[in-house]
Amino acid sequence: MRGKTVNERRIGIVMNGVTGRMGLRQHLERSIVAIRQQGGIQAADGTMIIPEPILVGRNELKLRRIAEQYGLERWTTDLAEALAAPDVEIYFDSQLTQLREKGVRAAVEAGKAIYCEKPIAESLDAAVDLAKLVVDSGLKNGVVMDKLSLPGLRKLKRLIDGGFFGRILSVRGEFGYWVFEGDWQEAQRPSWNYKSEEGGGIILDMFCHWRYVLDQLFGEVRSVYCQGATHIPERVDENGETYTATADDAAYGVFELDGGIVAQLNSSWTTRVFRDELVEFHVDGTEGSAVAGLRNCRVQHRSATPKPVWNPDIPVSEKFREQWATVPDNEPMDNGFKVQWEMFLRHIVDDAPFTWDFVEAAKGVQLAELGLKSWHEGRKLEVPELTLKAN
Amino acid sequence: MRGKTVNERRIGIVMNGVTGRMGLRQHLERSIVAIRQQGGIQAADGTMIIPEPILVGRNELKLRRIAEQYGLERWTTDLAEALAAPDVEIYFDSQLTQLREKGVRAAVEAGKAIYCEKPIAESLDAAVDLAKLVVDSGLKNGVVMDKLSLPGLRKLKRLIDGGFFGRILSVRGEFGYWVFEGDWQEAQRPSWNYKSEEGGGIILDMFCHWRYVLDQLFGEVRSVYCQGATHIPERVDENGETYTATADDAAYGVFELDGGIVAQLNSSWTTRVFRDELVEFHVDGTEGSAVAGLRNCRVQHRSATPKPVWNPDIPVSEKFREQWATVPDNEPMDNGFKVQWEMFLRHIVDDAPFTWDFVEAAKGVQLAELGLKSWHEGRKLEVPELTLKAN
Amino acid sequence: MRGKTVNERRIGIVMNGVTGRMGLRQHLERSIVAIRQQGGIQAADGTMIIPEPILVGRNELKLRRIAEQYGLERWTTDLAEALAAPDVEIYFDSQLTQLREKGVRAAVEAGKAIYCEKPIAESLDAAVDLAKLVVDSGLKNGVVMDKLSLPGLRKLKRLIDGGFFGRILSVRGEFGYWVFEGDWQEAQRPSWNYKSEEGGGIILDMFCHWRYVLDQLFGEVRSVYCQGATHIPERVDENGETYTATADDAAYGVFELDGGIVAQLNSSWTTRVFRDELVEFHVDGTEGSAVAGLRNCRVQHRSATPKPVWNPDIPVSEKFREQWATVPDNEPMDNGFKVQWEMFLRHIVDDAPFTWDFVEAAKGVQLAELGLKSWHEGRKLEVPELTLKAN
Amino acid sequence: MRGKTVNERRIGIVMNGVTGRMGLRQHLERSIVAIRQQGGIQAADGTMIIPEPILVGRNELKLRRIAEQYGLERWTTDLAEALAAPDVEIYFDSQLTQLREKGVRAAVEAGKAIYCEKPIAESLDAAVDLAKLVVDSGLKNGVVMDKLSLPGLRKLKRLIDGGFFGRILSVRGEFGYWVFEGDWQEAQRPSWNYKSEEGGGIILDMFCHWRYVLDQLFGEVRSVYCQGATHIPERVDENGETYTATADDAAYGVFELDGGIVAQLNSSWTTRVFRDELVEFHVDGTEGSAVAGLRNCRVQHRSATPKPVWNPDIPVSEKFREQWATVPDNEPMDNGFKVQWEMFLRHIVDDAPFTWDFVEAAKGVQLAELGLKSWHEGRKLEVPELTLKAN
Repeated sequence: MRGKTVNERRIGIVMNGVTGRMGLRQHLERSIVAIRQQGGIQAADGTMIIPEPILVGRNELKLRRIAEQYGLERWTTDLAEALAAPDVEIYFDSQLTQLREKGVRAAVEAGKAIYCEKPIAESLDAAVDLAKLVVDSGLKNGVVMDKLSLPGLRKLKRLIDGGFFGRILSVRGEFGYWVFEGDWQEAQRPSWNYKSEEGGGIILDMFCHWRYVLDQLFGEVRSVYCQGATHIPERVDENGETYTATADDAAYGVFELDGGIVAQLNSSWTTRVFRDELVEFHVDGTEGSAVAGLRNCRVQHRSATPKPVWNPDIPVSEKFREQWATVPDNEPMDNGFKVQWEMFLRHIVDDAPFTWDFVEAAKGVQLAELGLKSWHEGRKLEVPELTLKAN
Repeated sequence: MRGKTVNERRIGIVMNGVTGRMGLRQHLERSIVAIRQQGGIQAADGTMIIPEPILVGRNELKLRRIAEQYGLERWTTDLAEALAAPDVEIYFDSQLTQLREKGVRAAVEAGKAIYCEKPIAESLDAAVDLAKLVVDSGLKNGVVMDKLSLPGLRKLKRLIDGGFFGRILSVRGEFGYWVFEGDWQEAQRPSWNYKSEEGGGIILDMFCHWRYVLDQLFGEVRSVYCQGATHIPERVDENGETYTATADDAAYGVFELDGGIVAQLNSSWTTRVFRDELVEFHVDGTEGSAVAGLRNCRVQHRSATPKPVWNPDIPVSEKFREQWATVPDNEPMDNGFKVQWEMFLRHIVDDAPFTWDFVEAAKGVQLAELGLKSWHEGRKLEVPELTLKAN
Repeated sequence: MRGKTVNERRIGIVMNGVTGRMGLRQHLERSIVAIRQQGGIQAADGTMIIPEPILVGRNELKLRRIAEQYGLERWTTDLAEALAAPDVEIYFDSQLTQLREKGVRAAVEAGKAIYCEKPIAESLDAAVDLAKLVVDSGLKNGVVMDKLSLPGLRKLKRLIDGGFFGRILSVRGEFGYWVFEGDWQEAQRPSWNYKSEEGGGIILDMFCHWRYVLDQLFGEVRSVYCQGATHIPERVDENGETYTATADDAAYGVFELDGGIVAQLNSSWTTRVFRDELVEFHVDGTEGSAVAGLRNCRVQHRSATPKPVWNPDIPVSEKFREQWATVPDNEPMDNGFKVQWEMFLRHIVDDAPFTWDFVEAAKGVQLAELGLKSWHEGRKLEVPELTLKAN
Repeated sequence: MRGKTVNERRIGIVMNGVTGRMGLRQHLERSIVAIRQQGGIQAADGTMIIPEPILVGRNELKLRRIAEQYGLERWTTDLAEALAAPDVEIYFDSQLTQLREKGVRAAVEAGKAIYCEKPIAESLDAAVDLAKLVVDSGLKNGVVMDKLSLPGLRKLKRLIDGGFFGRILSVRGEFGYWVFEGDWQEAQRPSWNYKSEEGGGIILDMFCHWRYVLDQLFGEVRSVYCQGATHIPERVDENGETYTATADDAAYGVFELDGGIVAQLNSSWTTRVFRDELVEFHVDGTEGSAVAGLRNCRVQHRSATPKPVWNPDIPVSEKFREQWATVPDNEPMDNGFKVQWEMFLRHIVDDAPFTWDFVEAAKGVQLAELGLKSWHEGRKLEVPELTLKAN
């Protein structure tokens, strides 16, 4: 009464930039470590895929602590050394955007598959160059587009696929919260976010997300109008030093999508939240509407749509928010980062499809760059087809 | 046991257009009839001012019924006859916009004070011409700007006056609800609203409001960007006939105001309401934020601002909406239309100030016209100073 | 300044049987008297139609009291005298079913339009004979089918017309409540309801309703299976006398409708209510489901449908009832009886369509008779096409 | 300070079919493993009875994982090998119905006590044959009838035993929920459930339950009428392949029980749930009524019964659902499957009574077969006494 041995495939992953918050919490702890704890994931032939992380960073002390905390043994401050390890198949990069290119180039030279945080570069030119390098190398590659794997957006996708909306008319999005100025209470985001010379700015940060969310859920983005702002011109950094904020901290965007859909999306680090979630999309269609956040999604079908009359002199008679129904999970809703890691690992092992590659990521940078340009020129800009030849 | 005789001053008011919904409900029933039922309003010298309406319209049957319903005796289909009545001091007009000019001209010729619904004309040229005519006549004049007298906006004004916000950074506004297409359930707005050739369109309707709300609460409007849309291209009218909607039914606007404030306001007749009220303004300032609707107003002070961290993989831990405090009424909050009528009557009798005149109203038409132009040109437009000489 | 005279048309209506509860409350008070109080209803040419009731009954005292209560002057115990009044155009009958035929025959002879409560007769033969008589006479005629005008069913109709359900699969209906036995607390229904020899029985009472509800909302009834029961065999009547219940007090019915729809409807005077309303229909379709009562209607669209797993050992994790959205009124919802009276008056004056005639009513009796037969034979019966020639 | 040695009796149980959901979750995890974790159950003489499972199945990988997950060491794909283990006393079978007979025959030959999931066979003939085989063998045997051990039905039993209902008049039952079609969201039940050629169909599945619930709680079933339906004719299976549903997915049943009780039970996989629990029974009696689900039970006594009047024109004035009182647990309410396992183990060790044997189980199959026949013949069928000689 003994079972057969189950085959395992251990895949070395160089993880560069795990000392940053997203790299540590989302990619290491809640994705790679979590996949290891559940015993790996199963490949098509039944083999168990086990990721083996090698931590890379600039701060030895931090690396050592992280390794200890998660029971890992391999870490180094020398990227070349890490890439040279015989079992390494994947290079992952969640460093500051400015450092990304150098890391990716080293990985390409080492012939490793590449998986990155977004944005892949600070400018479209640089993004296209990097995408071209990676694509020409023939190496497997992917970029994190975690929002699409979040439960709220997955339910939204389900509604779209099920034809719930009829024809989609418009999308409104509100993203943001109050990032403290640092003078009175510490800021909850790093100071480089507020310095354009260090790759900061909410347009560069968020428009990369808006691009894939809009393109892949609703319709290709055809034009962009963006009004940026630096509402808080002076902040205090991690060391208590006052600095001038040179990057935009809010962006009011209007996008035209395929099919005549209008998307109006606000992004702000200078707003106080009067919503259920930090980001919410309100989608209106001929047959129904939905409001989706990161986790939850609510709907109102045409049949249950109230007919309010504009009577400004009398109190509201209807509880509008209570007239919406909650979309149930109906399936396990795992961490979005982990879901994408599992997809990328299957892409490596089984050649399973993975559509979010460097070209898609360059499109995000394109939209960010066009957003900045639109702001400065005060006009709506068309979004041209992106090719790796020219931009 | 006899009281002193109270002096009365009865002021005849020609009310043209009371067969329409706003004219009937807001101006006749909830303003003029309500003032009469409460015994009039008191002038500075103690005299009771009693409005005496003379209903004017084109449909005899409707006029007769309205008169009966409110116990009024004077009505006619002949405007000249009405204006000739000896006690008439005020001409009020809530007709279709297209008919407004003719009525106002007749009143100017008859030398009556003039009070109008907005917009005063469909184009800026016409609005300026009409404003010039009225101003040059030296007659007292006013235009309805009811939103400012609504409880929600009055509380917002109170917060601004009290310095609650610190420096105001931005204003977001959402106005709208689903206006039924008429095919399956009857529409709750008249079909002319959806025909540009009849003066319809949400930009023309709402930007007149946005102008005085922004100008008078937050700062003068300096630029406008507007993306319009006709999301529902075909509707069914009051007689069951299908027609093509030629006017915009949604507008996504971005405004720059004095002081670097950005106002982002969406107006839509094609959205399902997931808010507490049909219109809501979200104002963010350095010291605090507020969300005001027609009736209610909620605030979050800097001291009570939460510090959320962007953790898309875990459920929301805070009930953001519950962290806001409700601003109390603290004073009687009467119907906004009635409040403005009382101010206008005092303007007539006591020469009390009344700032919302035809020039201010022309500014509303100016913003609407610039909004339409911005949409068609795809760029942000400056809002020039309005003079009655040129535009 | 005087209005024109509005024309009036006064229509005399002989109301026979208004001493019964339904006749008094629904037809006299909430329909005819209510129409008079609102000033009548308007005909196509603007004429106001004013109903003028003449009360007829067997109990002089009751008639006098009712007349006084509603400020009416005309009443009599002599039907012939009432029918002979020169202004009478309509005969209305809400007597006991057994007395209906005689009243209707008198009205036919007098050449009056006829409007009746249901059922029009106790047996199909009698119903067909009466329908034939009325139809052959060429007189306008109608039968009360009030359920269709109730707010809940009107919303259900709206959902069906709007395509909400996709393909309808099934209808479940529960009607009923506990009718007290009379021994301990007085019964709230008359004792004849429980005596088959007096036209009682819940099958005869309710299947007439089910026929038009099913036929006109979901699909023509093609077959019926009915299990009747006399659950309470002994009751106490209005005079405190114990009597044997000879009629059915509960019926468990299964109907097949056009399109493969199954309708399963229970009717009972011996059940305690664990629902929101006394009657509720649960409709399931491929795209959505609804639960409609007399007033309210709730829906669950496919998109918001939960995916429960059958885990009998753990407590319910979902609040199923809270996952449904309420269908808003969106239009005035008047009393169903009054709505039908207004339609019938317009049918008389303007020749407006009125589909619920004696032939439709005979179909109700047909279904009741087939239900009784199915019960006694223990088998499903086809519902043949009803013609006035044969049955 | 030493305790007495407690005697243990370890009983080997061959568990065949634990790779299926019910076998795994209910029988292995929540019954056998749970009993082991609590240290076994105590026999009459104080001995602790410890079940020792030996997992049997066809998929080695699944068996190995399950064994690891629950810390078990014995598993095999060879039933004969398992039955040959020296400590085995019980054979348990929760395989697909089609495979049941073979497993049971092997166990009979091996002389083991037998405990099975229901139904014991797909046809009455096969069920009677199998029951005869088992009974003739003299071996102890039992079949899972878990509903009776659920908290809701245990409270119902308590009400019946206490005379709460007076004379029971009727039972209404609703079982069901929406099983997704598999095209848009994955189905939550296996595809064989919808194929009659693989033993699927809701009549075969649920009528086995209804038989013992009705027989043992309310009265012996004397007749059955059943209307089946295949409301969703096409579904998508586990591999994404579209298939034709050949089995019934809804059944509308009417049963006559001893004592003139009528039971009307609907079972459906094509209904959206507007109840508190997935199954609910509504029982009406002369003295009181109850509504019982899997967990909860609510009652309304005659003394608290409202007396609603049928006034379709006015909104419901009473909150009927709030007028019911909740029956408290008053005793530990363990998992129904575990309770029955404990009873069966005591039946083996102590010869404690266990009434739910193969004969009772055959009655369930009898009712299912009569239900299918009734549907196809369109008539009510008597339920004959079941003997092992003839059927």
